[in-house]
Amino acid sequence: MKAGKAFFVAVGSELLSFKANRYSPVLAGKLFKAGYTLAGEITAADRLEDIKKAMDFAQKNADIVIVTGGLGPTFDDLTRQAAASLFNLSLHENQKVKKTLQKRYPHLEKWNLENQSLVLEKAEVFDNPNGTAFAQVLKMKGKTFAFLPGPLKEWEPIWDEKVSKIIANKKQKIYFKNFRLAGLREAQVQEKAMPVIKEFARDIECTVLAGPYTCEFSFYCSGRSIFRKAGEKLSNIFAEYVYSSRDFSLAAELKELCIKKKVSVSLAESCTGGLVSQLITSEPGSSEFYAGGINAYSNSAKKNILAVSQQTLKKHGAVSRECAIEMARGAKKIFKTDFSASITGIAGPMGGTKDKPVGTVCFGFCGPDSEYSAVSFFRKDRDFIRQSSANFALFALLKLVKSYRG
Amino acid sequence: MKAGKAFFVAVGSELLSFKANRYSPVLAGKLFKAGYTLAGEITAADRLEDIKKAMDFAQKNADIVIVTGGLGPTFDDLTRQAAASLFNLSLHENQKVKKTLQKRYPHLEKWNLENQSLVLEKAEVFDNPNGTAFAQVLKMKGKTFAFLPGPLKEWEPIWDEKVSKIIANKKQKIYFKNFRLAGLREAQVQEKAMPVIKEFARDIECTVLAGPYTCEFSFYCSGRSIFRKAGEKLSNIFAEYVYSSRDFSLAAELKELCIKKKVSVSLAESCTGGLVSQLITSEPGSSEFYAGGINAYSNSAKKNILAVSQQTLKKHGAVSRECAIEMARGAKKIFKTDFSASITGIAGPMGGTKDKPVGTVCFGFCGPDSEYSAVSFFRKDRDFIRQSSANFALFALLKLVKSYRG
Repeated sequence: MKAGKAFFVAVGSELLSFKANRYSPVLAGKLFKAGYTLAGEITAADRLEDIKKAMDFAQKNADIVIVTGGLGPTFDDLTRQAAASLFNLSLHENQKVKKTLQKRYPHLEKWNLENQSLVLEKAEVFDNPNGTAFAQVLKMKGKTFAFLPGPLKEWEPIWDEKVSKIIANKKQKIYFKNFRLAGLREAQVQEKAMPVIKEFARDIECTVLAGPYTCEFSFYCSGRSIFRKAGEKLSNIFAEYVYSSRDFSLAAELKELCIKKKVSVSLAESCTGGLVSQLITSEPGSSEFYAGGINAYSNSAKKNILAVSQQTLKKHGAVSRECAIEMARGAKKIFKTDFSASITGIAGPMGGTKDKPVGTVCFGFCGPDSEYSAVSFFRKDRDFIRQSSANFALFALLKLVKSYRG
Repeated sequence: MKAGKAFFVAVGSELLSFKANRYSPVLAGKLFKAGYTLAGEITAADRLEDIKKAMDFAQKNADIVIVTGGLGPTFDDLTRQAAASLFNLSLHENQKVKKTLQKRYPHLEKWNLENQSLVLEKAEVFDNPNGTAFAQVLKMKGKTFAFLPGPLKEWEPIWDEKVSKIIANKKQKIYFKNFRLAGLREAQVQEKAMPVIKEFARDIECTVLAGPYTCEFSFYCSGRSIFRKAGEKLSNIFAEYVYSSRDFSLAAELKELCIKKKVSVSLAESCTGGLVSQLITSEPGSSEFYAGGINAYSNSAKKNILAVSQQTLKKHGAVSRECAIEMARGAKKIFKTDFSASITGIAGPMGGTKDKPVGTVCFGFCGPDSEYSAVSFFRKDRDFIRQSSANFALFALLKLVKSYRG
């Protein structure tokens, strides 16, 4: 692998006080695809001298430098000024940028508009459809600098659609494949992949990224035939765990499938409290298959709204497969849908018992011609347990709809 | 500000490929208590030259340098070697370390034991009860270097019990305050704070962090009387926008208030699709005041479950203050709660019209003796609109419960 070297400069005092910088792995993956390795990262506070020193250090140690943040309109946004000062360039108001911003945000204050229109001499500008900070790319003495807005949601589209293409290292084509998996822990993924990793040790690079009930396994290599051979073996190994081979979320895969099969879905959530519904509706167009859900957090809501029987609650408790299946039936009936799913469990940190420790979660699933319940145990904290439960429900629902031949 | 300056060097190739470095904020908080600000962070790959360059950059820009990682026994653990090479010091086997490790881990391989016993000439060693990499502290030319193991659970106890006491900057106590605000944009926060920022320009440092409908404004300073004066002025300026002065989330503040006032809450969500419910239930113990919610994504769910009238839907549409208030009434009645809130809007990217563009969101709020509706317009993408709407609803609900004298 003869990739170019890239350096990441993250600007923002918040990254040195209360906010974690989670973008290095994201950027590393994207750089790989463009033919670069991430050689280092440096976080600079919102101070002119600090940003300058960081950019200078970065350019001395890499071919390209990606700078994120510090492009906002306020007093502590100093990335443009730092670059101007470091390279001895001027900053000027770009009329095209100004007009675009004026049209898009007619109520922007004058000073704000003027600041956001400032462009570095010699830099190429790239529109930011999701914010007022436009991206700028500057080539100086054989090095390329990309200045991007701070939030991932703003820089990612600009990177994917524009900047990555400009900086792409054409000498080196890198092949990349990402498997999105559910139902395997990180160590299990590694164990399953190990024979392939060993067989192609000299030619491929792999990473495993663990999530709640999910994992991403990705591999890179530079030769097409090795890519195909290793990819095929991994596809076979992971077959039953793959929920997306095109980098879609669980909710996005579910949406596509349900719309294609013309089936509708509803939910009844207890311990996840709306999280599954929120994930489904985060997909635009989800109203085409998703009718709605009941967040039945209290027992009386389970009884009065979802019609879970008093007997079930008394005999098995709210966290039981019996209660879960009645919840799912209730949702299916209320929303008149083809499918429904329910989640009821103990997310903690309180509420666990010896028989049902924190992390015990029950699920119910109803389809047009079948229903079933499940129980699973998740570890770690409240957040992780809720997210794992949500992903478990989405993956099970996806498989249920897939198997339906209606 | 006369706090000491600290620099964080994180060593590890994994931090430049698949793993996020989440420790800067943790370390920043700990440094603050010891009288230092975190001036910058740099991540170095497991390469000797990279680690040396990173440490050298760090020492030029700070009084103390905290290095984590690269202290393991394998070929790619090179922090000790890099320090030895940078400062021209020797590495020797420390017999006390070796004996401790031998006793604690009798099955450790010889090469492993020998590597883990290597200590820098002139360095002070600190036991690591949770691993084989001991910490080392080195003072060189007026600068202090702390070499710590990589995992948080290993370095945190060593830091808290030993290293923090050695490096403590006794000359300097730092004061820090964070205002969590809702209802102001970043630029508005800055405008309001500007007189105070200007008045205390030489003595305080400020940062503004924008979120969806929310902002965080924080300031630091080193003198108690300036901290009190500036803090008081800012508290007055931000009074009506502050939702937490103790770094709680909106949902956490709402939970505390509702439990204290012994009132219950329910929700009816359309465009947020369960997001508000999810935020509320992410707080442990939320079942004490939160009964549940209806995610009424379809019109028929609004009609059949929440009892929104056909006439309202026909005359005003699902995105209207009229519909919102009927949704809130429906939730309040179904869940039999004291308060309820509803959200119905156009999160986009499709579905906007000239009269109701993407980002138009209507809200309904019901209390024991009052009800009201509101409409707001949010910008940016679907995610941001949904999150802004959720925070708007939580903030409004918080104010409504606060004003209730039941």
